[in-house]
Amino acid sequence: MDRSSTGAGGGRRTRQTAHELARYEALFAARTRGMKSSAMREMMALTEQTDVISLAGGLPDTSTFAPELYAKLMAKVAAESTARALQYGPTEGMASMIRCIVEVMEAEGTFVDPSEVIVTTGGQQVIDLVCKTLIDPGDVIVAEAPTYPGAVPTFSAYQAEVEQIEMDPNGMLIDALEATLDRLHSEGRRPKFIYTIPNFQNPGGVTMSLARRRRLVEVARERELLVLEDNPYGLLRYEGEPLPTLHSLDAETVGRGGASDLVIYLGTFSKILAPGLRLGWAVAPRPVLEKLNLGKQGADLCSSSVTQTFVAAYFEEPGAHGEPAWHEYIERLRVLYHRRRDVMLEALEEHFGEGAAWTKPQGGLFIWATLDERIDTTDLLALARKNEAVAFVPGRAAYMDGRRGSSSMRMNFAGVPDADIREGVRRIGKAIREQLGLLGTLTGKPAGRAPARADSAPAPAAGEEGHSALADVVALPRRDDGAAPRRRRDR
Amino acid sequence: MDRSSTGAGGGRRTRQTAHELARYEALFAARTRGMKSSAMREMMALTEQTDVISLAGGLPDTSTFAPELYAKLMAKVAAESTARALQYGPTEGMASMIRCIVEVMEAEGTFVDPSEVIVTTGGQQVIDLVCKTLIDPGDVIVAEAPTYPGAVPTFSAYQAEVEQIEMDPNGMLIDALEATLDRLHSEGRRPKFIYTIPNFQNPGGVTMSLARRRRLVEVARERELLVLEDNPYGLLRYEGEPLPTLHSLDAETVGRGGASDLVIYLGTFSKILAPGLRLGWAVAPRPVLEKLNLGKQGADLCSSSVTQTFVAAYFEEPGAHGEPAWHEYIERLRVLYHRRRDVMLEALEEHFGEGAAWTKPQGGLFIWATLDERIDTTDLLALARKNEAVAFVPGRAAYMDGRRGSSSMRMNFAGVPDADIREGVRRIGKAIREQLGLLGTLTGKPAGRAPARADSAPAPAAGEEGHSALADVVALPRRDDGAAPRRRRDR
Repeated sequence: MDRSSTGAGGGRRTRQTAHELARYEALFAARTRGMKSSAMREMMALTEQTDVISLAGGLPDTSTFAPELYAKLMAKVAAESTARALQYGPTEGMASMIRCIVEVMEAEGTFVDPSEVIVTTGGQQVIDLVCKTLIDPGDVIVAEAPTYPGAVPTFSAYQAEVEQIEMDPNGMLIDALEATLDRLHSEGRRPKFIYTIPNFQNPGGVTMSLARRRRLVEVARERELLVLEDNPYGLLRYEGEPLPTLHSLDAETVGRGGASDLVIYLGTFSKILAPGLRLGWAVAPRPVLEKLNLGKQGADLCSSSVTQTFVAAYFEEPGAHGEPAWHEYIERLRVLYHRRRDVMLEALEEHFGEGAAWTKPQGGLFIWATLDERIDTTDLLALARKNEAVAFVPGRAAYMDGRRGSSSMRMNFAGVPDADIREGVRRIGKAIREQLGLLGTLTGKPAGRAPARADSAPAPAAGEEGHSALADVVALPRRDDGAAPRRRRDR
Repeated sequence: MDRSSTGAGGGRRTRQTAHELARYEALFAARTRGMKSSAMREMMALTEQTDVISLAGGLPDTSTFAPELYAKLMAKVAAESTARALQYGPTEGMASMIRCIVEVMEAEGTFVDPSEVIVTTGGQQVIDLVCKTLIDPGDVIVAEAPTYPGAVPTFSAYQAEVEQIEMDPNGMLIDALEATLDRLHSEGRRPKFIYTIPNFQNPGGVTMSLARRRRLVEVARERELLVLEDNPYGLLRYEGEPLPTLHSLDAETVGRGGASDLVIYLGTFSKILAPGLRLGWAVAPRPVLEKLNLGKQGADLCSSSVTQTFVAAYFEEPGAHGEPAWHEYIERLRVLYHRRRDVMLEALEEHFGEGAAWTKPQGGLFIWATLDERIDTTDLLALARKNEAVAFVPGRAAYMDGRRGSSSMRMNFAGVPDADIREGVRRIGKAIREQLGLLGTLTGKPAGRAPARADSAPAPAAGEEGHSALADVVALPRRDDGAAPRRRRDR
């Protein structure tokens, strides 16, 4: 059965494979030419490895969920509704599940009608279904720069053209957005939707200010554009005041009691409960919701009733201190991730040195760091994995063209124990110095002073090629309030 | 919050909705014009209703799975791997899960390499990912007539042109397939893949003979076409000998120990275990597998680790009589569904009468019946749901153009208790007679003799419009062996 061990057969296979590859190529759809593996897949694969310290994946810490509670809730489902948990459910999701989603939305200060909700197989499926509904090949999506690395292959598979708008510590630059929209208009191109992660942006780690949120909704309204608001971490805020969702700001403008007609809201249980459930949701204007539902029917019929009934049972569970258990769990995650964020920030100060700059997120899972411009983090990752057994997401993965972001990286602090954060950052710091040493040798430029810091690496200057606005500004003194204007017009 | 109850707001909303609908229409992708709700969604929605006897859905009987075992397996997962069950997993699936899939394939007599497998979110996702990988708008898919109603909206969403090939009790007519392929060739159109359900076809209930299987693989090989073999029920055979999968027949031809290079195999746990898990799989030639994986990354990152770890725990469970528990469970399903099939066949004899004909499946979940040609089963369904509180899938749902199959219907015998099968079929019989009575009144033709049988309805004649070859032949004496040739050339 082991084909690789049969000599002659192996040779024949190799020849055949070349022939077959050509044959299959002719059968593949045009969209597959734009399909490439995102950094995400390697990250997924790493989840089954244990020898590497991975700061790469978007993994929450699922070891925080009590096994006893898992067993208890599953036993409850078993006693009450095994047959239903094992059966197909409605495409839009089970009613008991949608009630949980309405509760989570209320905790975000956003009030929605259950009939505006569709349950999906993770938040990722929302991005896929929104593209399926709105994107013809060549259509334009406007996203942030950098953007969620997991959205990049989805946008590619739908052959979208993506315009990425720079950010600063207050989120997407709305002036830059308007300039881009003007340019697109003059070119006769109309974007189908604006994709944004307003809270603790992935991978940028910045939060869109209230003023920017208001302006974004205004701009979308004036130009009749849809907005896809991706909000996986809204409840995972470690400091500062919660800000309203774009969905609620738009609904307020419309004044019809909760229904936004231009914001498609993406939520997920992956970060506030567990990604292994594969449960997310969309809230959308009804005509869009109808298409999302049709798209989902064709994609996977319905999401898992096993995991939906589990969530429904969980939301009925009282906590130890009077609050519902799910509130208390999120509070525990907040305390834990807050500390881990601080551990990572300390470790970065210690090991990355002055040639680097990074964001200080008020919540979420990720820190975005930008290194000496001579470093390509894709090369660095190869070196770091091989020599130091440590991983992160290279910045290019967050750009559609794969050219920008070359000196940046995303690191996850939430899913990794404190000691591994310290050790992981130390190892990356070591790899950076190795890489700078190599570059010094190759180019004749002076290498960073080993061993502790790469002090000699120049701080990135504003406007330099290879550095995003985000990368530039994080080198400036960081602000924690996120809501104050940085520039006069661009609130 | 209840917008529908506010008078003025309601009026405003109605006007706005018309305006907005137009606005959204302009934003929708071209593919949404081909997207329509399949019969499947209504069936899904019915799963949350209890007052209707539904013979419609593709539902297995999940009440057969012991709640104690569900709780026990979940407790085992909790004790051993809660954190892992709640975490993301690899896109291609967890290694422990893939081992279970290899075991199921072996039980089907098909030997595959774990590296050729990808775990999916139900079998439906395989159809979606295969289309994503292979279909550009206008590309041709060859399918059976009738075909799986759940595939119809997927094929539509990818803007495929689908050629449906007639069947007889031995499955797809290979002569007709070749004639269609010749015609397509002469038109310069090359189909991307042939979609077939060889065992207990959904919805037709027929099984492709061994001779036809061999010829289908030959034809695909000669013409360098891919085959998507959809085999959800292969292990649910109630009589007759199991037949080899197309995958194993092709692998045999290639002679490389298990690897088929033209068959993409679709498997699922939905019918042999539980659809609520949303776990299926594909076995595919490696270049295709790679694209399926990329497509899945963009679609939902990975399938549920909660349900994958559950299946892995289940496959380790010993049964009561020495066999693995999952073998014994399938054996119990076989006994149960066999009886229910017989109950439905009896009920059909009693209540459908001689104007109708139906298939006698050797396994699976479905019987396909064809009625008096004057009856449109789409209208009949409306009547039957309203007056008789009973549901089935109308035949049109199994045809891409929605025009053929108008006198046919699919009924599920597996997921419904014996008494409900009898009562459901009785109610449909009553609705048929009501409908024939109405037609008699409208057209002046004599109505069927009420109350017991619609004896006066003519048996469908071969070749008549509105009847598929399958509908025609099932009126002939039925054969149980399925493997014997019906026509000389078309084995």
